[in-house]
Amino acid sequence: MLDVAIARARILEKISPCGLETVSLANGCGRVLASPLSARLSNPPVSVSSMDGYALKAEDAREGAVLRIIGEAPAGHPSSQTVERGTCLRLFTGSQIPAGADMVMIQENVRREGESATLLSAGRQGQFIRHAGQDFHTGDTLLPAGRLLGPRDIGLAAAGGHIWLPVSRRPRIGVLATGDEIVLPGDPASADSIVNSGAFMIIALLQSLGAEAILLPLAQDNADSLSAAIAQTHTLDMLVTIGGASVGTYDRVRSTLEAHGLTLDFWKIAMRPGKPLMFGQLGHTPVLGLPGNPVAALVCSLIFVAPALRKLLGQTVPEEMETEPALLGADVGENDQRLDFMRCRLTPQSNGHPPLVTPFSSQDSAQLNIFAQSQALLLRAPFAPAEKAGTPCRILRLP
Amino acid sequence: MLDVAIARARILEKISPCGLETVSLANGCGRVLASPLSARLSNPPVSVSSMDGYALKAEDAREGAVLRIIGEAPAGHPSSQTVERGTCLRLFTGSQIPAGADMVMIQENVRREGESATLLSAGRQGQFIRHAGQDFHTGDTLLPAGRLLGPRDIGLAAAGGHIWLPVSRRPRIGVLATGDEIVLPGDPASADSIVNSGAFMIIALLQSLGAEAILLPLAQDNADSLSAAIAQTHTLDMLVTIGGASVGTYDRVRSTLEAHGLTLDFWKIAMRPGKPLMFGQLGHTPVLGLPGNPVAALVCSLIFVAPALRKLLGQTVPEEMETEPALLGADVGENDQRLDFMRCRLTPQSNGHPPLVTPFSSQDSAQLNIFAQSQALLLRAPFAPAEKAGTPCRILRLP
Repeated sequence: MLDVAIARARILEKISPCGLETVSLANGCGRVLASPLSARLSNPPVSVSSMDGYALKAEDAREGAVLRIIGEAPAGHPSSQTVERGTCLRLFTGSQIPAGADMVMIQENVRREGESATLLSAGRQGQFIRHAGQDFHTGDTLLPAGRLLGPRDIGLAAAGGHIWLPVSRRPRIGVLATGDEIVLPGDPASADSIVNSGAFMIIALLQSLGAEAILLPLAQDNADSLSAAIAQTHTLDMLVTIGGASVGTYDRVRSTLEAHGLTLDFWKIAMRPGKPLMFGQLGHTPVLGLPGNPVAALVCSLIFVAPALRKLLGQTVPEEMETEPALLGADVGENDQRLDFMRCRLTPQSNGHPPLVTPFSSQDSAQLNIFAQSQALLLRAPFAPAEKAGTPCRILRLP
Repeated sequence: MLDVAIARARILEKISPCGLETVSLANGCGRVLASPLSARLSNPPVSVSSMDGYALKAEDAREGAVLRIIGEAPAGHPSSQTVERGTCLRLFTGSQIPAGADMVMIQENVRREGESATLLSAGRQGQFIRHAGQDFHTGDTLLPAGRLLGPRDIGLAAAGGHIWLPVSRRPRIGVLATGDEIVLPGDPASADSIVNSGAFMIIALLQSLGAEAILLPLAQDNADSLSAAIAQTHTLDMLVTIGGASVGTYDRVRSTLEAHGLTLDFWKIAMRPGKPLMFGQLGHTPVLGLPGNPVAALVCSLIFVAPALRKLLGQTVPEEMETEPALLGADVGENDQRLDFMRCRLTPQSNGHPPLVTPFSSQDSAQLNIFAQSQALLLRAPFAPAEKAGTPCRILRLP
């Protein structure tokens, strides 16, 4: 049985970014930037006022000074006039600072009578001016390659003059659920049929992380049925299979894939849930074989498939799993040779301490109800000793 | 100037969930469940084996016992045979437990020779059996109304026999950016034009939270241009305007909306960035007027628009803003009468303590570059005193 961290590294080593596409700024949120974005213009493009008020010379900015108002410049309507000593120009938030002026007095500090403005306070050079390029200058790098674009990044790209964004295309990932006992929700079923839940969970996860996920037709536990699905593999950036990867007589996934030319890397790892995890390469396509139990399948997806997808998308993937600190909310027993990912409740603590994490009493890998109620997975290292409530520990938050 | 918490409560008070639609299970992830979901079947539907092995009677489960193998039942192919004393049935993970058997011996603990199975260890009643309904029973409530459905919920709904899901429809929210100085990215511009970034940020945010966001045509600072956009308002579940809501002569948004029948609730709140925030009702449509500076617009969207959207979606919205504890990473000065949301960097601490939060030196509300680099907003209460690095504080994480 392979160590989880080694398995994760071996998978990531074999995965490369899958390619680019161009999308509109309006469709860029949630996509991964494929190359660094530089500013095509400065922001603000010219010096502008940050308040409603009057542009003037700092030499005139004494309390009680009376200035002549030479005109008005709404935002978007710059004035061609020059502010000389003894004069000022009415302007508004976003208005261009006129020639000659080097500060803005806010309107609350000005008494206006006709064309005359009396300053009610002193001021200093530069006040309430946003200087040209104060946010960024033409040519500045705004966003790095590999960035998962959020709303603020979209705003920055817009302000930087970008209408089209180079992003990673959505990796196309096939999800193949296998098993004679599996049926699609609502399809005709016998008394012992199990409704397929694993594939729907994994597809939802992959889509939420930016993949184009394809539900392949269910495959039965025989080579013909599996072969039909496997024949599509060359059109995929990754194939994820569910079930049939264990040691049972009817676990045909591995043997059928190998008959189609799979180069097997490993197929058993030291984790719970999820011992039967298979990884290999079929032509150019990485293949991850997940266990059939739906909880195990999704936990393995979080640990292995999600980082593989991030690498396909060109994101930086940390070498280590991204765990968070927590404190045990209950005593836990000693662990065996497998890294354990226990389904848990989290209780936030108001004193600023890490949350308390309490494992559910049942950790069966077919229990979707408890899995849906869980907020995190508690990591228990191989051969970890029994530990008392209050001991620091590490968790993975569930999406 | 209205207190932020009061403003937030007054907005939420006026918002009601916006309606339902039915979507396929395959499209349910990221949607909000509109009514509780009960199980239409039990999971597992019958008692099944959790391992590959042999079904037998617990009375026979002594080390060294030799049992006759009466047949085999792959998953999905239940056997009609009954396991009697002295016999066992070969089965696999997911196979139905045959009549007469009350436990499973895993294959690693059985030596098989032809039709004879020698047990290599003792066993106990019930072992390696997943009992019918162990996950849930028909009629059990699986998911509550208002739940934002994630991958695990989709799996649970599938396992519970649901093919179609009742969800809140996506609220249709119009976003109207205003200002003579504003242009769309790439559109013809003059030297002092500002590329519209606020609307793109807010649309990205709204979409990521489950809304159908509509970029209305840009409106200039005159009543005609605004009226054209406002005429569409009755088709929207909410209207969000950006800019033009301040006290300047050219800030026509409020007056134009009022001329069209807006019932104004408030239009100034005690926060920074974001003093000019307007809220009212135009016919059946709530209207939120955001400040024109893009950083202020997005911060106000997080504080006011996002919870309003969650309420439109039928989600439970906590009364208070959901802040997290942190520790000041630098000294901060005293605050004035406005609740301040300072753009900050977060530094996680490995000792399990809350993260350190360090405000950027510039807090100008037009600086998108610093905003994009920020990880959180530090909350500084009105009239908060100067505080030293290391003092506990509260933050809002940025999406």
